[in-house]
Amino acid sequence: MKRVLVTGASGCLGRRCLPLLRSRGFEIHAVSSRSQPQAPGWVWHRQDLLEPGAAAKLCKSLEPASVLHLAWIAAAGEYRHSAENLAWVRASLELAASLGTAQRLVVAGSCMDDAGPDRHLTEQWPSLYGVAKSALYRLLCYAGGKANLPHFAWARIFFFYGPEQRGARLVPEVIRCLLADRPAICGPGTPVRDYLHADDVASALVAILDSSLEGTVDVASGRGCSVASLTQNLAAQLGRPHLLRLGERPAAPEPDRIVGDNRRLLHELGWHPQVPLDEGLARTVAWWREQLAAAPGPSA
Amino acid sequence: MKRVLVTGASGCLGRRCLPLLRSRGFEIHAVSSRSQPQAPGWVWHRQDLLEPGAAAKLCKSLEPASVLHLAWIAAAGEYRHSAENLAWVRASLELAASLGTAQRLVVAGSCMDDAGPDRHLTEQWPSLYGVAKSALYRLLCYAGGKANLPHFAWARIFFFYGPEQRGARLVPEVIRCLLADRPAICGPGTPVRDYLHADDVASALVAILDSSLEGTVDVASGRGCSVASLTQNLAAQLGRPHLLRLGERPAAPEPDRIVGDNRRLLHELGWHPQVPLDEGLARTVAWWREQLAAAPGPSA
Repeated sequence: MKRVLVTGASGCLGRRCLPLLRSRGFEIHAVSSRSQPQAPGWVWHRQDLLEPGAAAKLCKSLEPASVLHLAWIAAAGEYRHSAENLAWVRASLELAASLGTAQRLVVAGSCMDDAGPDRHLTEQWPSLYGVAKSALYRLLCYAGGKANLPHFAWARIFFFYGPEQRGARLVPEVIRCLLADRPAICGPGTPVRDYLHADDVASALVAILDSSLEGTVDVASGRGCSVASLTQNLAAQLGRPHLLRLGERPAAPEPDRIVGDNRRLLHELGWHPQVPLDEGLARTVAWWREQLAAAPGPSA
Repeated sequence: MKRVLVTGASGCLGRRCLPLLRSRGFEIHAVSSRSQPQAPGWVWHRQDLLEPGAAAKLCKSLEPASVLHLAWIAAAGEYRHSAENLAWVRASLELAASLGTAQRLVVAGSCMDDAGPDRHLTEQWPSLYGVAKSALYRLLCYAGGKANLPHFAWARIFFFYGPEQRGARLVPEVIRCLLADRPAICGPGTPVRDYLHADDVASALVAILDSSLEGTVDVASGRGCSVASLTQNLAAQLGRPHLLRLGERPAAPEPDRIVGDNRRLLHELGWHPQVPLDEGLARTVAWWREQLAAAPGPSA
């Protein structure tokens, strides 16, 4: 059985990858810095990968054949500029140097990094997160065979959403405001983004891992959707269009259009997204309704 | 007394910095992975900084006010493409994250990195060394205040030479060949480089450390000298011009001209190089003569 190590396994994407990997016959070792209840399909390892030496020790004891490296700072609102990004570069380099005989390494990149066709994106859209991901990507690319790295793919994740995604991100923020009958104060709504349901992101990551695809792969819907259109969809579903206040915040200094190119996924892996945007947003709204019904009180 | 931590302190440049730092009143803690005889002016710490956790432990115990970080893979002929470059990025990030209350950090960059005016130099002149140094530079620059880093300068070292420099580098190679009456087979000799004596490099590094200069500083002579001119100078000094065989190797795929801009050193720090090229080469030749006289036999 192919043994895979999944880092960041308790995150919104990581937890979705685990059953998909199991159904493909992987023996799964899942890492999280937080304690997790054991489940029949995989083994949890509680480990803070930021602790120097932790990644090396884990790899040495498990000798995985494949590694799906999703762990990184993810705290919404903080991740773009936190110094923890440097620590994740360090930990990721330690992990990469500890892979021993592993045959496969897939690392989560981002639409904010320089690995795409716009090779100097971080100059127009600077963030420590983008710079850190770009630095790691370049190092792993150039190191390649010299570092005895396994077949390596860099999965650039765009804007994902879905149930279980919390924190100060657009979709959960708007839903929470509107469910609490509070206005959702937004920017102008003109930026166009590429939204993909977390289930589809996870199925793409697992398809990439279970292939020999190398290089950069955009994990994206390939379709642009304006922030106005997305939030109006949510507001209509929640029956509160009057609470959506587009244009009441200044525009963020970000690119107008960020849309991925998913042709490698479609044509080289036969992957297809399964969750249309309307349905995905409806499922996300339904999940939040359940959450708030189960735990009434002021929303976070 | 200002406490400074010097990494890579047993290297050709590091060892030259120690007495200069002492004469400026620093309390010196010198790190090397190799055992060193204790000297009255500084304390040696034997530590392999590539061991995860080593840099953090050292900084925690010493709490330096300043750090001069010179350690990196330096093995001539190997350093450009060795996977150890990744390990040095990792170790350097660990060091930077462990500085605590330090006020000053100076890191050795290189003319092969992207920190100079040609911000994408590594695309024309690719090497894992250049990519790794560039990645570290960008990470430290962007992290800046977010990572609570001290005042930070990046000292781009160009082509240095001098006594005690060994290995497969141009100056020692040519001298060794000619002293052994063997031909020195060279490329066409047309590339123009910026050569600076190791003593002058060390005095510049110490001047930068003992200042508040931030950002990128070229540690360079500011003068171009062709490889032909440099090697002909050596061959003339050694009385063996017939053994210098320029143009008998193909040209390396490297830039034609690499010359630094030392105006920050000259005008902001009042630094001036003390060793003219002719004299520096003569001292280097004299050192090699002594070495070979002391240990006769086949040259390395």
